[in-house]
Amino acid sequence: MSTQLESWNTGATKSSILEFVTKVTTGNDPDYLPPADRIATFDNDGTLWVEVPAPPQYDFQIRKWIQEAQKNPSLASEEPYKAILEQDKAFFEALAIQDPTVVASVQDAFARTWVGTTPDVFAAEVSQWIDTVRQPKFEVGYTKLVYKPMLELFDYLKAHDFRVFVCSGGGLDFMRVFSETVLGVAKENVIGTEAEYEYKDGKLMRTGQFLGGIALGPSKPTHIFSRTGRLPAFAAGNMDSDIEMCEVAKFAILINHDDHNREFEYTKGAEKVLVKAKELGWTIVSMKNDWKTVFA
Amino acid sequence: MSTQLESWNTGATKSSILEFVTKVTTGNDPDYLPPADRIATFDNDGTLWVEVPAPPQYDFQIRKWIQEAQKNPSLASEEPYKAILEQDKAFFEALAIQDPTVVASVQDAFARTWVGTTPDVFAAEVSQWIDTVRQPKFEVGYTKLVYKPMLELFDYLKAHDFRVFVCSGGGLDFMRVFSETVLGVAKENVIGTEAEYEYKDGKLMRTGQFLGGIALGPSKPTHIFSRTGRLPAFAAGNMDSDIEMCEVAKFAILINHDDHNREFEYTKGAEKVLVKAKELGWTIVSMKNDWKTVFA
Repeated sequence: MSTQLESWNTGATKSSILEFVTKVTTGNDPDYLPPADRIATFDNDGTLWVEVPAPPQYDFQIRKWIQEAQKNPSLASEEPYKAILEQDKAFFEALAIQDPTVVASVQDAFARTWVGTTPDVFAAEVSQWIDTVRQPKFEVGYTKLVYKPMLELFDYLKAHDFRVFVCSGGGLDFMRVFSETVLGVAKENVIGTEAEYEYKDGKLMRTGQFLGGIALGPSKPTHIFSRTGRLPAFAAGNMDSDIEMCEVAKFAILINHDDHNREFEYTKGAEKVLVKAKELGWTIVSMKNDWKTVFA
Repeated sequence: MSTQLESWNTGATKSSILEFVTKVTTGNDPDYLPPADRIATFDNDGTLWVEVPAPPQYDFQIRKWIQEAQKNPSLASEEPYKAILEQDKAFFEALAIQDPTVVASVQDAFARTWVGTTPDVFAAEVSQWIDTVRQPKFEVGYTKLVYKPMLELFDYLKAHDFRVFVCSGGGLDFMRVFSETVLGVAKENVIGTEAEYEYKDGKLMRTGQFLGGIALGPSKPTHIFSRTGRLPAFAAGNMDSDIEMCEVAKFAILINHDDHNREFEYTKGAEKVLVKAKELGWTIVSMKNDWKTVFA
């Protein structure tokens, strides 16, 4: 376990992280936090792994929707199947930045696809997707596109008695399939949009409902409080949908995708959070300048 | 930290616990469980602390309802205020055993009482209740009436790399006020009936809704899966509302309240689970015979 942030270049960004952690873990500091309060929450898509061309779970789900439409051609005239089959550019662009309206519009289809599914069956489909699908630019599976500096940050925080949680608009069950092996985050430390299950005839099955809303924007603080009974000391995000999570934290970092060569360069969907970050003094991480290495 | 179950008498009950834990933590045993799967879930009322004359949270809530009715006399003709002010015996008996119909009937009032309340305000009221209210038989606060053998069992399980969770029909926020100091269970390891919050104007406030249903009966496995992404390896309960949680576990113990002198003697609300326990080979813990000491 590395606890030295080796992949982070020396500079203001790295220093701000080290200073915050030193301060809250030093007994006689006025900002000292007892270990119980050391909760760190990380957005997933674009903060821990590549989210271009779209948050990876959409790739998984869209493939499933195409299969469904092939088996049942009457779906082809319904949304979101229609937009997907027609490769509607506006639809995919809105999905890529998790536009709340489009995200909400696909929730029903999301739910319908998996009604009656048991956890094992769902996990097996996600595993197969992980093993077979390749991200188009890098031509490797998405779980190979996790940011090394962020995994080092997990280790660094854990070494200072922080508990690390992932908090994403993505599906709780989806992320839990790889959280332990890829991120080193226990399933119970994953927070996300939650499919409801019912317990019937000795097994768990999806009902087709979601519990507690999509974990984006103002729903991130409520999801975090629900899961942990606290608000975060440390938060990390990269999109407008992370604003509220960063607001409630004592210290926040924001990943700025400014590295066209090694990853991607974009600010779409992050316009507001970048303004807010400057206003409130959050640390902006430049992938290009602050990270020696991008991928794990 | 004691890891030897000192307050448990030697005998079949203690042996069955030791045998299960030894088996699942021994690498070459066919029943070996990797540490990630070592989840233990414990009911709270009657399993970890005294639940007579009623689950302690009802004492807290009923005092609040009486205050509300005093401030607003028009409530006195409405339920549950009416039954409480009239000390309706049937109502209190049904509440004592968490009769699902009566529990459901008070949910609306529960929710209404706390609409708009922030976590800090709620926690302060619970703390005041802990500090001032005395259980009638023992004349000490309820948090002094936690079972010592169960705390030793927590330590024993933790020493074998289990993660200990509480899973109760009681309120998530209520239990979290004392879980860390009294039970040694982190807030994020508490599972219970969940009040919904919204994040507005920079703070969390109760909406008056509950999320995911009351965590009793078939809703215990779903709450546990929701929180942990797993079903329990080890479960402990004492009432019919714990049947499903015990069913999904690999090993289950049931606290039998048969100790009139040191605690209470009752099987009301536990009739079905006692039958089920014999049928499925769950370990029945006799407070009278299996525990050297009852209270911590």
